[in-house]
Amino acid sequence: MPGATEQKIIDAAVRLFASQGYDATSVQEIVTAAEVTKGALYHYFRAKDDLLFEIYRLLITAQSADMDRIIELGLSSADTVREILVSLVVSTAERVDETAVFVREMHRLDEARMTEFRAERRRYHETFLGVIEKGQADGEFSSAVPADTVVRIAFGVVNQLPVWYRPDGPKPPARLAGEIADFVLAGLR
Amino acid sequence: MPGATEQKIIDAAVRLFASQGYDATSVQEIVTAAEVTKGALYHYFRAKDDLLFEIYRLLITAQSADMDRIIELGLSSADTVREILVSLVVSTAERVDETAVFVREMHRLDEARMTEFRAERRRYHETFLGVIEKGQADGEFSSAVPADTVVRIAFGVVNQLPVWYRPDGPKPPARLAGEIADFVLAGLR
Repeated sequence: MPGATEQKIIDAAVRLFASQGYDATSVQEIVTAAEVTKGALYHYFRAKDDLLFEIYRLLITAQSADMDRIIELGLSSADTVREILVSLVVSTAERVDETAVFVREMHRLDEARMTEFRAERRRYHETFLGVIEKGQADGEFSSAVPADTVVRIAFGVVNQLPVWYRPDGPKPPARLAGEIADFVLAGLR
Repeated sequence: MPGATEQKIIDAAVRLFASQGYDATSVQEIVTAAEVTKGALYHYFRAKDDLLFEIYRLLITAQSADMDRIIELGLSSADTVREILVSLVVSTAERVDETAVFVREMHRLDEARMTEFRAERRRYHETFLGVIEKGQADGEFSSAVPADTVVRIAFGVVNQLPVWYRPDGPKPPARLAGEIADFVLAGLR
């Protein structure tokens, strides 16, 4: 978890990147909006693209830790899938701005960071795939649809959230999360 | 359906936009790659952004026509959903390059075209929503998960295809389409 100052900087950067674009936002504007000193910003982030990467890294790191924690509980496959999906949908739905900024600007990441990002995303994908495959092997889930397609369907709706979802809209994150988990589990029965 | 010359121009533009970006592609390069005259290109497209819009408009127009045609067959709700999803997944999976280019560059569309695009997309969304709602009202589908979330799940995986799917990969479009339709219908039972 980032400290309070780091989080203030990230929140300000997300708001500015989302409203006026990454290019149009200067480090000075972020510093002013976050009400911190330039020295404080450079203590945490070497440059603006460091901040872009960190915005997303924090989110995916938290989501990975959540998934690992849930798997370690040793619940049934259905309960494991439900907990993972609810946690993933809620954390993504609450932070659609971060995800939208990252998706739009990720082509700016340097090769090392892009590699790190892809590895993190692949690990997350494969861990969830393993949960579905285990449930299918145990006979708790239907094997009618291959696990890789089930994962693409579950992650598809999550990855599209930034395009249409607003956390202050008619459907709160927890309700949406419950509906998505219900549907995926119904499909796996 | 576009004529042969128009399709050659579109195919060349998609290849160039996908490989080197929209900005870096000149009208002259498109003309050369398509093996047509500049006059032929300007006969069909006023400018480069006309071409960008047309690439996507052709796809969504064909998909809308497919959906209308399927609904008119008067099949059961389950068969209607299956036919719509298979047709949508196959047409998108076969043309992931077009969709990827459009998604990346759509912010360049002028206001009138953006409005037209949004209206077309909304109409498609609402027609499919109506099919799910009808099946739920008739009792053919479960109402456990609200129709709007079912539509977001079904379209989520379709809209994410350009991010990961390759039509020449291990899973051909028709097989992927069948799996997605199977899963969505299992969730609706």
